[in-house]
Amino acid sequence: MSLSDTAGGWGIDALVAELRDLRVKSLEHRQRREHPPKLPSRRILGPIVDNLGAVLFPNRLGQEDLNDEGIDYFVGQTLDSLLRQLHRQVALELRFVAEQNGTSTEVKHQAAEITREFAKQLPKIRLLIDSDIQAAFEGDPAARSSDEVLVCYPGITAAIHHRVAHELYRLGAPLVARVIAELAHSATGIDIHPGAQIADSFFIDHGTGVVIGETAVIGSRVRVYQAVTLGAKRFEKDDNGMLVKGNARHPIVEDDVVIYAGATILGRITIGKGSIIGGNVWLTHSVPPGSHVSQGQNRTEVFATGGGI
Amino acid sequence: MSLSDTAGGWGIDALVAELRDLRVKSLEHRQRREHPPKLPSRRILGPIVDNLGAVLFPNRLGQEDLNDEGIDYFVGQTLDSLLRQLHRQVALELRFVAEQNGTSTEVKHQAAEITREFAKQLPKIRLLIDSDIQAAFEGDPAARSSDEVLVCYPGITAAIHHRVAHELYRLGAPLVARVIAELAHSATGIDIHPGAQIADSFFIDHGTGVVIGETAVIGSRVRVYQAVTLGAKRFEKDDNGMLVKGNARHPIVEDDVVIYAGATILGRITIGKGSIIGGNVWLTHSVPPGSHVSQGQNRTEVFATGGGI
Amino acid sequence: MSLSDTAGGWGIDALVAELRDLRVKSLEHRQRREHPPKLPSRRILGPIVDNLGAVLFPNRLGQEDLNDEGIDYFVGQTLDSLLRQLHRQVALELRFVAEQNGTSTEVKHQAAEITREFAKQLPKIRLLIDSDIQAAFEGDPAARSSDEVLVCYPGITAAIHHRVAHELYRLGAPLVARVIAELAHSATGIDIHPGAQIADSFFIDHGTGVVIGETAVIGSRVRVYQAVTLGAKRFEKDDNGMLVKGNARHPIVEDDVVIYAGATILGRITIGKGSIIGGNVWLTHSVPPGSHVSQGQNRTEVFATGGGI
Amino acid sequence: MSLSDTAGGWGIDALVAELRDLRVKSLEHRQRREHPPKLPSRRILGPIVDNLGAVLFPNRLGQEDLNDEGIDYFVGQTLDSLLRQLHRQVALELRFVAEQNGTSTEVKHQAAEITREFAKQLPKIRLLIDSDIQAAFEGDPAARSSDEVLVCYPGITAAIHHRVAHELYRLGAPLVARVIAELAHSATGIDIHPGAQIADSFFIDHGTGVVIGETAVIGSRVRVYQAVTLGAKRFEKDDNGMLVKGNARHPIVEDDVVIYAGATILGRITIGKGSIIGGNVWLTHSVPPGSHVSQGQNRTEVFATGGGI
Amino acid sequence: MSLSDTAGGWGIDALVAELRDLRVKSLEHRQRREHPPKLPSRRILGPIVDNLGAVLFPNRLGQEDLNDEGIDYFVGQTLDSLLRQLHRQVALELRFVAEQNGTSTEVKHQAAEITREFAKQLPKIRLLIDSDIQAAFEGDPAARSSDEVLVCYPGITAAIHHRVAHELYRLGAPLVARVIAELAHSATGIDIHPGAQIADSFFIDHGTGVVIGETAVIGSRVRVYQAVTLGAKRFEKDDNGMLVKGNARHPIVEDDVVIYAGATILGRITIGKGSIIGGNVWLTHSVPPGSHVSQGQNRTEVFATGGGI
Amino acid sequence: MSLSDTAGGWGIDALVAELRDLRVKSLEHRQRREHPPKLPSRRILGPIVDNLGAVLFPNRLGQEDLNDEGIDYFVGQTLDSLLRQLHRQVALELRFVAEQNGTSTEVKHQAAEITREFAKQLPKIRLLIDSDIQAAFEGDPAARSSDEVLVCYPGITAAIHHRVAHELYRLGAPLVARVIAELAHSATGIDIHPGAQIADSFFIDHGTGVVIGETAVIGSRVRVYQAVTLGAKRFEKDDNGMLVKGNARHPIVEDDVVIYAGATILGRITIGKGSIIGGNVWLTHSVPPGSHVSQGQNRTEVFATGGGI
Repeated sequence: MSLSDTAGGWGIDALVAELRDLRVKSLEHRQRREHPPKLPSRRILGPIVDNLGAVLFPNRLGQEDLNDEGIDYFVGQTLDSLLRQLHRQVALELRFVAEQNGTSTEVKHQAAEITREFAKQLPKIRLLIDSDIQAAFEGDPAARSSDEVLVCYPGITAAIHHRVAHELYRLGAPLVARVIAELAHSATGIDIHPGAQIADSFFIDHGTGVVIGETAVIGSRVRVYQAVTLGAKRFEKDDNGMLVKGNARHPIVEDDVVIYAGATILGRITIGKGSIIGGNVWLTHSVPPGSHVSQGQNRTEVFATGGGI
Repeated sequence: MSLSDTAGGWGIDALVAELRDLRVKSLEHRQRREHPPKLPSRRILGPIVDNLGAVLFPNRLGQEDLNDEGIDYFVGQTLDSLLRQLHRQVALELRFVAEQNGTSTEVKHQAAEITREFAKQLPKIRLLIDSDIQAAFEGDPAARSSDEVLVCYPGITAAIHHRVAHELYRLGAPLVARVIAELAHSATGIDIHPGAQIADSFFIDHGTGVVIGETAVIGSRVRVYQAVTLGAKRFEKDDNGMLVKGNARHPIVEDDVVIYAGATILGRITIGKGSIIGGNVWLTHSVPPGSHVSQGQNRTEVFATGGGI
Repeated sequence: MSLSDTAGGWGIDALVAELRDLRVKSLEHRQRREHPPKLPSRRILGPIVDNLGAVLFPNRLGQEDLNDEGIDYFVGQTLDSLLRQLHRQVALELRFVAEQNGTSTEVKHQAAEITREFAKQLPKIRLLIDSDIQAAFEGDPAARSSDEVLVCYPGITAAIHHRVAHELYRLGAPLVARVIAELAHSATGIDIHPGAQIADSFFIDHGTGVVIGETAVIGSRVRVYQAVTLGAKRFEKDDNGMLVKGNARHPIVEDDVVIYAGATILGRITIGKGSIIGGNVWLTHSVPPGSHVSQGQNRTEVFATGGGI
Repeated sequence: MSLSDTAGGWGIDALVAELRDLRVKSLEHRQRREHPPKLPSRRILGPIVDNLGAVLFPNRLGQEDLNDEGIDYFVGQTLDSLLRQLHRQVALELRFVAEQNGTSTEVKHQAAEITREFAKQLPKIRLLIDSDIQAAFEGDPAARSSDEVLVCYPGITAAIHHRVAHELYRLGAPLVARVIAELAHSATGIDIHPGAQIADSFFIDHGTGVVIGETAVIGSRVRVYQAVTLGAKRFEKDDNGMLVKGNARHPIVEDDVVIYAGATILGRITIGKGSIIGGNVWLTHSVPPGSHVSQGQNRTEVFATGGGI
Repeated sequence: MSLSDTAGGWGIDALVAELRDLRVKSLEHRQRREHPPKLPSRRILGPIVDNLGAVLFPNRLGQEDLNDEGIDYFVGQTLDSLLRQLHRQVALELRFVAEQNGTSTEVKHQAAEITREFAKQLPKIRLLIDSDIQAAFEGDPAARSSDEVLVCYPGITAAIHHRVAHELYRLGAPLVARVIAELAHSATGIDIHPGAQIADSFFIDHGTGVVIGETAVIGSRVRVYQAVTLGAKRFEKDDNGMLVKGNARHPIVEDDVVIYAGATILGRITIGKGSIIGGNVWLTHSVPPGSHVSQGQNRTEVFATGGGI
Repeated sequence: MSLSDTAGGWGIDALVAELRDLRVKSLEHRQRREHPPKLPSRRILGPIVDNLGAVLFPNRLGQEDLNDEGIDYFVGQTLDSLLRQLHRQVALELRFVAEQNGTSTEVKHQAAEITREFAKQLPKIRLLIDSDIQAAFEGDPAARSSDEVLVCYPGITAAIHHRVAHELYRLGAPLVARVIAELAHSATGIDIHPGAQIADSFFIDHGTGVVIGETAVIGSRVRVYQAVTLGAKRFEKDDNGMLVKGNARHPIVEDDVVIYAGATILGRITIGKGSIIGGNVWLTHSVPPGSHVSQGQNRTEVFATGGGI
């Protein structure tokens, strides 16, 4: 008679021991101590970014039934709570880095400084996102209102995350920033490295498959479509064969450029102001302002076949 | 001594004031009043669509332990609850549009009418999704059963969302429809505008990166693979330089067409019945029924290099 | 006076009856009985895989405040709980298959056997994921530490899911495996069929749009970028026009190969050891070890236009 | 530096071993096997009773926005779900008893029989609770409407639980019944043993501290106030000094009796029809119909003291 | 083979029909229409009262990590949210009463007026609860600090609920008030009717079983112990035998009175200032200021028995 | 047109200011600083005690599907987690006390010491609760098995909480202990001060209204029924009129005493071994071993009235 499952005998004791051995060896291999410091947490940063959205756009992304009397209290209370949580996440990153480097800096004050500086940037961030929304509304014939854009468009979700992540990257919390960028990547398929510098009025339409690299620089009023890559051409290695990290290796895209779906632009090249890069174009050299770049020919062949496959 | 975090001094009072000023200016800029009407909510529409799936396929997507005696009660109760919620979301959209247009139509009855009409379409929607499942099962050598297809395939998730969203779009709730489409986009990477007209037995395999535009028309038994775009070639502008919204600008794909991964098909062109469009093809002109379109040449060059990079 | 919504009249009785008729017809059509067996559940398998991650990397993905004294208890308790849940999911799959085949095998012991065998593979899985993390750290100039890679990189999320799913596929639970693969697909845009055989030190960068087919074979130290397809060229049909399922139809990629973004590699071909496949390359024939494959020419045309669009 | 708590050294290994030894000894002491059968669960029975309330009074205790069209679906769906859960709880009790008795009866069919029989009693239970509500409304000068009584009065909460628990007790699930009785006890301070037989129109006012024993028999239209006990006078022991279980040992209270606060009535005595038992009365012998029982004298002494204590 | 429960055959169709008939008859019996108006909800009022506690004592009952900068935002945001919810609950009560009376008053403005007036009383309520806390601290030798009193003492939980409920009762929302009083009754065993008028510095120790009636009047600095009743002696009936509702029928307790455990005080009598009422006293007549009331004799008999029972 | 509630104008700004003033004055009045230290939290201690129950009785109160292989991991993991949480609660109490006293002791190590010592007592606590369960089983004719007693009886819930709370009280965390005692009080109506010393095999039947004071001492095999008070006769005051706190003021109850419902025993008296105290007895002087104490006479008067009230 069996109302429930009674299977077992999984060999848990042995498994626990084996996995412990692997952990110990892995830590030894990396010359690390048993209790590695904690890392910033995706599970906690997700709601922090959602709350930042609510603070910046309380009527649209905040609590549902806000009115005049309560809105500033909502904004203040949400800010107070999220900044304290963000402070802890930043402190985790700083402590992790300090322990990796063998230094033992006091991190809480530095984390508070970064958080405070970040808070000061919020009005600027709001203005940038406003410009992104306006760009989307003007650039998409299917958009009916800027409110619809804010609530529906994955490109705006990506913009909110990037604007936030970039400030944190810039202020010295690149790992927190990266986690935030990956939250947007998972939700939208748009992968923008938090290091990328992006001016106002940036619009990504559809967006799935877009990749923008760490050292990319993007001007004002740039528009890109799905599956566009702004990538590195190759990775430099040093004399020991190790990758050189951090040098400028992604494109500069000047103001008013449009890049259509599937275009791949690689290396530290410059796409001149006002250029248009056609769909699926593969581009690894700079082009002057006002260029139109497209594929050279219709490379398709058509055979009439009478319907059979 | 410190058990908890005591950092602070975020300057919240100043931030709250700055953000309030930005909100006020933004509303003034758009000549809008302080209390903008609420929009339909992604957080609420998500469970509504999940429950629609449960109602249409109660044995597979419904409550786990349904049996003969209870199944109709489950379906009826779930319908009753979700239609009331959907009604509210539709009413929010209508009210939002009315306020934007400065009209003050009574929206609740119109919303009820749309919801009621939508409910009547559910059997048709079920039949369409049945045909999509069957198409996936027949079209994918890795599929073992139609049940597996329903539970696993992102293309079916996208189909359920689109079949629902398209009816709502058609009946006059395009913003609710758009939010539903974006839920599927986020979960699957498949971006189908709710306006797209898609006949039965539609199968999207893998799907990430697929984009199908608002005025696309797709016939029966069409199959598409990942990263296929059915897009607009260019956007028309009116004499004032404003985008012309709403005109037919995406492809017509006739019955029995197959479009392989990465193909880009742009503009109001027609892909004739039974055609096959090869991978990565770039197509901006119509092709007659029975066409086979592929890239004209093997454009790759191979260098034997002896193994070094 | 109306505080709440009173709309209704959805015609629920009629809808319930119509939907019941459709269900009955659909079951009859497939010659299936009224109470189809349950399928493995995405909602349950999600936390199971998350807990597998926590068991394999308790310091990074496990409970937040683990220490030396508690870590083995955490691992053992989590394992005990998740293996029992996994056992039930595997049993659901076996029973579903048995009923489809009209056999009535006792499934619980077979499910326990599969689960027990799977548990034994966990140390091997941990080592493989360790190698994937190391490969990502070494291959990405933006990576600062292997911990960051584990917590942030979508390619690692995909690797954890695939390493787990592949063992389950191999041991006889392909549907459970498929659900797990689709969880990763939804979260990362990376679509790896659980049947694919992938050796150690596999690194997918960015990842959105990657598709790897069921019979693909991938060697050690292979690196692929976003939107790479390792697909089938065509599907064979048998004499009845039905798809032949299960035969080898995807590429073999030997050790140390790098495949750049957007490359499409189709059919049972072999990419020789150490080859480099360039971005957007379309490849349907084998290449020998050490090949460099790239597009044959710069196919872009540039027109200087003075800035107007 | 410490952001988090690092205390530990709790000696968990030793504790786990000690507690294991105690468990093993305790089981041996009771000659029981290592895996005792599971018991019915308070955590699960709580929502089952809440849902029974919702099924019996859907407009008042059910889902908030029910209307004509949906109400029967709500009732049917809730019933279907709760009866299946109740069936499992009853089966757990039967299995537990069977294992204790060393028998190995098949319990699932018997549990289904009990559940089915219980379901048939629901209309009768509804009528009894209706009579209890009416009695409360008529008996309390503070009651404004019968709806208020249903939603607010702890005596009605106790009545719903008792009416349900008594049927289950009677049908052979006394442990499930007891857990339900204790849920009411915890919420209201009213402790009615599920064995007590209570006719219609029973009203408990305030209720805290009321205790009604297993073999009590209560007629129609009886009213009791807080802290009333209907208890056993003494417990009989058998020749071995063991308590004799199950014999009639609590009072019989005939129709139309009122028992004021704090009265204690002990033993298998009879309180005749229409009697009134005064507050704090201690009663251990039968009284004939129409009796008024009160304390014999004003036993208080009053000293004027001028205000000092 | 059975992994799950397949019992059924509960006869749900018949049950649903029977229960529907009972509902219809019950409504007809009370001459009520099919859709009775909704009542205020215990499930919603519970968090409202918790939040009122948080607003009044944010450092002790509010969000855990509040500091100077954020505390007023927390208070304002919580108030804004809870007052809107309370407004809805009050409106439900007014509408319910209006429909019962056959009137169709506009209730939303009246509900807003009540809510607004209630909000104005919050500072007064805070002062009263402060006085209750101080009284508990001074009156209980086991109390170590006033903070401990606020967080631990059931008498304070009851006081917070009563201070809130009484204002709502007074302002015209007696049903909302009653639900709040019953929340405290369930949590503490202390049953204070919201109509009771209680001056400052009221302390209930232990509290289980305390009952205080609707028209009781209690002065300043009164202390009562567990199981004290301030009740009605009898209920008057009118010429039709119906209870007369609303007249003064509970005791008046003047300032500085102490009432020890188990005392029962009934009827519209007056306990003069500074009196002490002993444990278990039964009192139905007024006593002058400064009285000491105790039981007249030691009514216990002791038999030395040599230890056997 | 109104879909939602738009009432407002609550005067929140003014309220926030008024409440702030009251807070500031209250803090000044008590000469306290603006940021009072946090107190132990009922919301957190509730699950800690539940988990202690699960650790002590994993088969009955632990995770539902434990088996041999997993049970020690469950116990160890739960212990590890709950002891860390308990440590934090104890540290909050110590810090609170230190700040009140103006000392600034380092509290974390002391809190760890208390927690460690508490952990060592768990086997003893388990044995005591085992004896309580056995006493209940033997003492209640309605009890069918000791398992039923553990899962159903409020007296056992109270015992588990008291055994835990008393150890914490004894080790120096009286406030944490008090919160735990009040959790039991709220759930069961049984109010045992954590200071009370209670030997093995203690059984409280029904329990509502039981009060046991801080300095009570209770021997082995004592049984008490509902509404029994073991209280203080009067509170001593010092020369300043302040209550003297902490001196022995509650009864000593020797082994094998039975105290029936409603008995009130006050003051530092001794109830000799094996005595029986009858229901409702009021006792303020010591009685020798073997005493039977009961009320002196049947004080009730019965009037036959012919049925009218």
